[in-house]
Amino acid sequence: MGAVVEGGAFPFELGEIKRFAGVFDPRPTHLDEAAAAATFFNGLAASGAHTFAAWARLYWDLTPGWANQAGTDISRMRLLRPVRPGDTLSLRFEVLDKKPYPLKPGFGFVDMDHDLRNQHGKTVLRMTCRIMIELRPGA
Amino acid sequence: MGAVVEGGAFPFELGEIKRFAGVFDPRPTHLDEAAAAATFFNGLAASGAHTFAAWARLYWDLTPGWANQAGTDISRMRLLRPVRPGDTLSLRFEVLDKKPYPLKPGFGFVDMDHDLRNQHGKTVLRMTCRIMIELRPGA
Repeated sequence: MGAVVEGGAFPFELGEIKRFAGVFDPRPTHLDEAAAAATFFNGLAASGAHTFAAWARLYWDLTPGWANQAGTDISRMRLLRPVRPGDTLSLRFEVLDKKPYPLKPGFGFVDMDHDLRNQHGKTVLRMTCRIMIELRPGA
Repeated sequence: MGAVVEGGAFPFELGEIKRFAGVFDPRPTHLDEAAAAATFFNGLAASGAHTFAAWARLYWDLTPGWANQAGTDISRMRLLRPVRPGDTLSLRFEVLDKKPYPLKPGFGFVDMDHDLRNQHGKTVLRMTCRIMIELRPGA
């Protein structure tokens, strides 16, 4: 309860931002520097889906040995700032609550707040979520 | 108000599921058929981040000509079913509300419900979100 985990480093390179966007979110704001500079983004920014994918990777990197997880239920997620080419993100999350899943023996819920930040310490993505987790034997 | 948009096709190939997971979510449940079969997933499934990225692409494909968007605020997102190799997802969304953004002239909010479904018509991801959108001149 109340455990805080913090760390990790996920870099956003220009080429990778464009490659991801080309497949998953081909907006000019993610693909074309000149077009992006002419919008309220004031320059090229990564897709929000790319930012969320970076969260998944940082969460994995910061939870070695954690059990199998599924059924993610995000009660709120906000994309608060653009992620720019050259940014490196890190993650801070806090475990708010843990409890058994009454309908599914051997499983439990973990409630968490997640804060994904850039190298300036500014939050780019914030979310509160509940994840279903397989309990360790005897837990 | 109340407009419903539906369609698109985003395929999940085994190789692409593993490639995405290798970069963004390297859990055995997304990378290793035998390991995944031994978990409550009952087989390999795509990363939830991959599913969300497919949503971004389908939303783009279904909204040609829509204005620049940002500041996505998801008030709830649930990953309800696994996405399997060979699945093809489509999107149905409904516009719940549109209103001007009082603090930022020229911008507005659009509230929507999104329902991402597999080829059997079963929902794999459901979310409610608000997106900030640049108003068209004269809107």
